[in-house]
Amino acid sequence: MAERSVGLTAPNPPVGVIIVKDGRILSRGWTQEGGSPHAEIHAINQVRNKSLLKGSTIYSTLEPCSHRGKNPPCIDSIIKYKFKDVVISQKDKNPLVSGEGIKRLKGKGIKVIQRNFGNNINKLNNIFFNSVNKNKPYVCLKIASTADGKIATKTKESQWITGKQSRMMGHYLRSKNDCILVGRGTVEKDNPSMNCRIAGLDHTSPDIFILDTKLNLNLNSNIFKLKGRKVFIFHNCSKVHKKQYKNIKLIKLNNSFDTLDINKVITAISKKGYHRILVEGGSELSTSLLKCNLIDKIYWFRASKVIGNEGIGAISNLNIKKMSLVKNLKLENSTRLEDDILDIYSRG
Amino acid sequence: MAERSVGLTAPNPPVGVIIVKDGRILSRGWTQEGGSPHAEIHAINQVRNKSLLKGSTIYSTLEPCSHRGKNPPCIDSIIKYKFKDVVISQKDKNPLVSGEGIKRLKGKGIKVIQRNFGNNINKLNNIFFNSVNKNKPYVCLKIASTADGKIATKTKESQWITGKQSRMMGHYLRSKNDCILVGRGTVEKDNPSMNCRIAGLDHTSPDIFILDTKLNLNLNSNIFKLKGRKVFIFHNCSKVHKKQYKNIKLIKLNNSFDTLDINKVITAISKKGYHRILVEGGSELSTSLLKCNLIDKIYWFRASKVIGNEGIGAISNLNIKKMSLVKNLKLENSTRLEDDILDIYSRG
Repeated sequence: MAERSVGLTAPNPPVGVIIVKDGRILSRGWTQEGGSPHAEIHAINQVRNKSLLKGSTIYSTLEPCSHRGKNPPCIDSIIKYKFKDVVISQKDKNPLVSGEGIKRLKGKGIKVIQRNFGNNINKLNNIFFNSVNKNKPYVCLKIASTADGKIATKTKESQWITGKQSRMMGHYLRSKNDCILVGRGTVEKDNPSMNCRIAGLDHTSPDIFILDTKLNLNLNSNIFKLKGRKVFIFHNCSKVHKKQYKNIKLIKLNNSFDTLDINKVITAISKKGYHRILVEGGSELSTSLLKCNLIDKIYWFRASKVIGNEGIGAISNLNIKKMSLVKNLKLENSTRLEDDILDIYSRG
Repeated sequence: MAERSVGLTAPNPPVGVIIVKDGRILSRGWTQEGGSPHAEIHAINQVRNKSLLKGSTIYSTLEPCSHRGKNPPCIDSIIKYKFKDVVISQKDKNPLVSGEGIKRLKGKGIKVIQRNFGNNINKLNNIFFNSVNKNKPYVCLKIASTADGKIATKTKESQWITGKQSRMMGHYLRSKNDCILVGRGTVEKDNPSMNCRIAGLDHTSPDIFILDTKLNLNLNSNIFKLKGRKVFIFHNCSKVHKKQYKNIKLIKLNNSFDTLDINKVITAISKKGYHRILVEGGSELSTSLLKCNLIDKIYWFRASKVIGNEGIGAISNLNIKKMSLVKNLKLENSTRLEDDILDIYSRG
């Protein structure tokens, strides 16, 4: 259930909850889109006759919150409906909660038990903790290349290298991330909308961050046309005609160089409450993330096609001379999608 | 059984045979190494009491031969031991046989039945037919690259991109091909022996063809040291000090250009009785084969590593500008080998 809300809950973490009484499941809940209601309240709301909740146990993948954000604290409801005990997988490392929830529940005589729900749950929570406490969001890189690792012909044509199923999976990845990060070149080249075009999931299109150092991007591009999502542009210009960027948020990064500092970009995205970033190219952006060791996962879609060495490589220059310096990845999974292969790598 | 002898029987085809009498298998046979004895004789030899053969049926993946090569004609033995009938999957399209075997067996009152043994058998036979009749051998390309399609760093280091299991599989491929074709650069770069180093299969190392237009290769390279196999060099030089090439066969190709005509190379190899060629790089050779549509299968071993765009690409320039001109392959299979992926492609 926590997995179900991944990519939809930022700046809140995806949480899953079950309410049990006398060995029977009363209800289930998960963090709702945009983060409210929280999983605990969603589960409580499912129970029509609230008197049933008295004496029941709530299982949650994360310590219930004790602070008031967009929502009232979850522990208030747990106390109000007289739950008997709370079983959690992990203490919330977010400094706004960080044991305060447990402490206040215990103060009201509610037993709190910590029990590890397994690695998948810990991973989900850690993505949230890293982003909130260290400004280190989870960065996924999506690559759609030929068998020889090219993402476009030398004339930058790339539609379509991969097949329909791969492209659908690409849309699904969008729905599972909080935002997309993309270089100017990629926006210019294909004029993409970069939304999730799976029927029923089209409302889950993530917000967009674009790197456009000199603010050269044509504002009539499709990427600016989709309603209901935020668009941010990182740039390095001292003078900007802000009027023309009315619906676009500009983020200025001071840099001594002509390129933007990718570490600063990632930190800035995290500070805005985004925990999961999907990077959709181009190769310069992918390469600088790889160089700085900022990529957590690569989804590499590989078509059964060959473009040859003049094509644009998925990864640009890494300045690697020796085999001993080659970047190692960890192969997590490999699946066939029609005539394509999807290889999933994590950090080596 | 025919599959068992693939890569070991050239210039003969790999054939499998079963001898059956009264619903019981009397023996099985397959073409032996170097092509003799033929499968039929190998199977007949298994039966100690030859009188048992009278009235039995012989099943063969290919029409038994009627001509005398290194071996006496198989049909003579079939006639001699008074087989009742012969069931074959295909008529031998080799002009030396081509129905003559069937005709002569029938002439002796032996019934000949043709029954399709299935696609795998037809494929094996077609490789033989194409090579014998059209000088079109079966060309397999082996590629060992990183995830981003690089076969070496920019300083040409490549040991080891792929893991142990992939390299073992590479050795196995050698045992399943009649010869290896390789460019001079690859021999110079790694100084490889290019033999099959699987215990028990080390005697199956294929003969070697090297492209060395200007005959620049150092004759002390490891590739010239292995005993018991033939080494050929294709070149384009008018004057050659033949003495120094005493154990090496030189093949001169006249070319107006500085590079060798790859079509002529492949034809020449076929004419020497080799049906299956394993190409082991480098990228210029692979590319010219791909351009001329000469590759039947690609074994692409892909390590979970990234070198970046300065590395040497598996495929060199193809001069493809438009996506519509991209080379399409057919994905046959994909397997995980430790941290590598082996993708097998055939013609698109």
